[in-house]
Amino acid sequence: MKKPLSSDFVIGFLGAGQLARMSALQAFRYGMQVAVFSDRTENEPVQFMTPHSLSGSFDDVNSMLDFAKTCDVITLENEFIDSAVLKELSEKSGTPIYPTPESFSLIENKLIEKQTFESAGIPVTPYLLVDDKDALIRFGEEHGWPYLLKSSKGGYDGYGNKTVRNIEEALEAFHKLGGGAGHDILAEAFVDFTHELAVQVARNETGYVVYPCCETVQKNHICVAVKSPAPVSETIQQQAQNLAVKATEAIDGKGIFAYEFFLTTDGSLLLNESAPRPHNSGHYTIEGCVTSQFENHVRAVCGLPLGSAEMIEPAAVMINLLGTKNRSAVVEISNEAMAIPHSHLHSYGKIQSKPGRKMAHFTLIGNDLEATYKRAISLTRKVEI
Amino acid sequence: MKKPLSSDFVIGFLGAGQLARMSALQAFRYGMQVAVFSDRTENEPVQFMTPHSLSGSFDDVNSMLDFAKTCDVITLENEFIDSAVLKELSEKSGTPIYPTPESFSLIENKLIEKQTFESAGIPVTPYLLVDDKDALIRFGEEHGWPYLLKSSKGGYDGYGNKTVRNIEEALEAFHKLGGGAGHDILAEAFVDFTHELAVQVARNETGYVVYPCCETVQKNHICVAVKSPAPVSETIQQQAQNLAVKATEAIDGKGIFAYEFFLTTDGSLLLNESAPRPHNSGHYTIEGCVTSQFENHVRAVCGLPLGSAEMIEPAAVMINLLGTKNRSAVVEISNEAMAIPHSHLHSYGKIQSKPGRKMAHFTLIGNDLEATYKRAISLTRKVEI
Repeated sequence: MKKPLSSDFVIGFLGAGQLARMSALQAFRYGMQVAVFSDRTENEPVQFMTPHSLSGSFDDVNSMLDFAKTCDVITLENEFIDSAVLKELSEKSGTPIYPTPESFSLIENKLIEKQTFESAGIPVTPYLLVDDKDALIRFGEEHGWPYLLKSSKGGYDGYGNKTVRNIEEALEAFHKLGGGAGHDILAEAFVDFTHELAVQVARNETGYVVYPCCETVQKNHICVAVKSPAPVSETIQQQAQNLAVKATEAIDGKGIFAYEFFLTTDGSLLLNESAPRPHNSGHYTIEGCVTSQFENHVRAVCGLPLGSAEMIEPAAVMINLLGTKNRSAVVEISNEAMAIPHSHLHSYGKIQSKPGRKMAHFTLIGNDLEATYKRAISLTRKVEI
Repeated sequence: MKKPLSSDFVIGFLGAGQLARMSALQAFRYGMQVAVFSDRTENEPVQFMTPHSLSGSFDDVNSMLDFAKTCDVITLENEFIDSAVLKELSEKSGTPIYPTPESFSLIENKLIEKQTFESAGIPVTPYLLVDDKDALIRFGEEHGWPYLLKSSKGGYDGYGNKTVRNIEEALEAFHKLGGGAGHDILAEAFVDFTHELAVQVARNETGYVVYPCCETVQKNHICVAVKSPAPVSETIQQQAQNLAVKATEAIDGKGIFAYEFFLTTDGSLLLNESAPRPHNSGHYTIEGCVTSQFENHVRAVCGLPLGSAEMIEPAAVMINLLGTKNRSAVVEISNEAMAIPHSHLHSYGKIQSKPGRKMAHFTLIGNDLEATYKRAISLTRKVEI
């Protein structure tokens, strides 16, 4: 690989959304050039940030090959490209992809992911590969109704998942998710938890750094806020950090990874989801930590030494600013929020707003977590996008 | 003006160097689109950051008119475009330019600049408009040899300036700088000083914020390092901050401004230079302050509320990483420096390195100024670009 701090070094992103955008901003800080490949025809956030932008299909190696050849390293902002496609793309273009297709292959399928992490001694939420009516009934009897059905590939933020309350709903969802038609379907138990936690880990051949354990506050399966550090005991925080590092090692991860955990009512941690990329739960690290998840993402995939993940102040809160209506995007009534010291507004440059779409976020740093959280909520209550 | 936090809002930069680049990185954080106009044909740092890039002449309104019409607001990274050209450009395109052409007109000419600041009660280095041999002799007799001759327009980092040791050198320099041929030439006394200080001020209709008073460490008239806060008394720091605010008000400045002062051996402050733009002395603010000079630059010219200029840790040091040889740019031997917590490397994406060219900078944050300075010097000593 070319020296990553050469000014003609090109970092390529497959995917052009806000995660690639915030990573690209860090790549620019290192003097790199940024190339982006999108599978959408509409204008995407990163496409405004580089003259080097292409569109095509993520399913087709040939569609991405010319792009890949112009890059010195490639990384991703989602986990929806098949690891076999990535492997072929890397081999044909000669361009390294990080995280590696091998790492992707261990987490792209929820069944293999759970097996991989279980084998590494990491507790995961109870699950079963369900292939018929009997299995659906058995899982409900063992773990209680309702439970979740998930397609083993392609699920995200509530898509590809279905909560089922009885065997009739289970059968309907099983078929809708593609069960019995070549798709592996997992049943997953609902877990009684007190907190949803997340930890980011950056890792490459120079070592690893682990970010603080934060709490993700969810509404309707969408993360609306993040508090860091999570308001749980230091022991739990450290356990979550240890599990996150162990998980990254289990997949030999090179890049930035995020892990979401349930802290159950009986005080144990269960790994719920993993993401081989920057994650919404880590946006607070831009101003909250010495080195952001995006900076360490770029460092990790380029083989550069990793930066400290230490927090700058005792508390950081991130509020997701979701679209409120269908219209051209504009952040309104944000002046009060912007005028507060230690407040930071990030807007993703999406042209079109729609209800619930992740359009922007707001970070507030402070000394006291709950006071900072309350203030952040109050400051962003009136913001419209 | 269109609402600045609309996603189709375009901020235009006249000039495409590292100052525009670091400002553009902040504009992207607000979801804005970035357009750039360069007067150079070679690849410039910002041109890698946007599909929206044009080249042409800064002297010709028509050359910039199409560019200006596509922008919602325009700002600059240097002070070399004639204020009359800027005024006509703004009028013809209908696009506001900040800082305003009126502000520029008060500082583009060193004579008018000094008169403006003197009228506002701000002490400046002793000077005289010299138009013949007698005046050159008289200034030397009054203020001592050597002294400086400066072209009243277009000087920068030692260009357009000449140190003269006697009347023969003074006469030669006077003619070389264009004296007697329509160019105003200023004589400026050398001042005995203990420190060179700098202060940034951001200001617009929502108010102003003033940054800490920092020290610029110079070698051969090039800034090699910045220490913040400056190792001088708090009284001096505050005096410098007050003078900087007064100077910004004197020109009704809207944008970010930097002021360089001499702290003389008798303990008084003299304003030496002003810059209506982000300034090398303020690069440390990216990680050193709650809101960087670049973020407040963007906020100021877009009419957004300004962010806090408070420091994050007690001390910040910035080291300019200058080119060491003629070659394609690559930051080498920087791994040790990058691996240190609170260290931050910024490279400007210039393709070609040459000795003395500003290619990158390194910021280190700490608790103790001198210890941080020594460490930063030691960490960057081996870096080659």
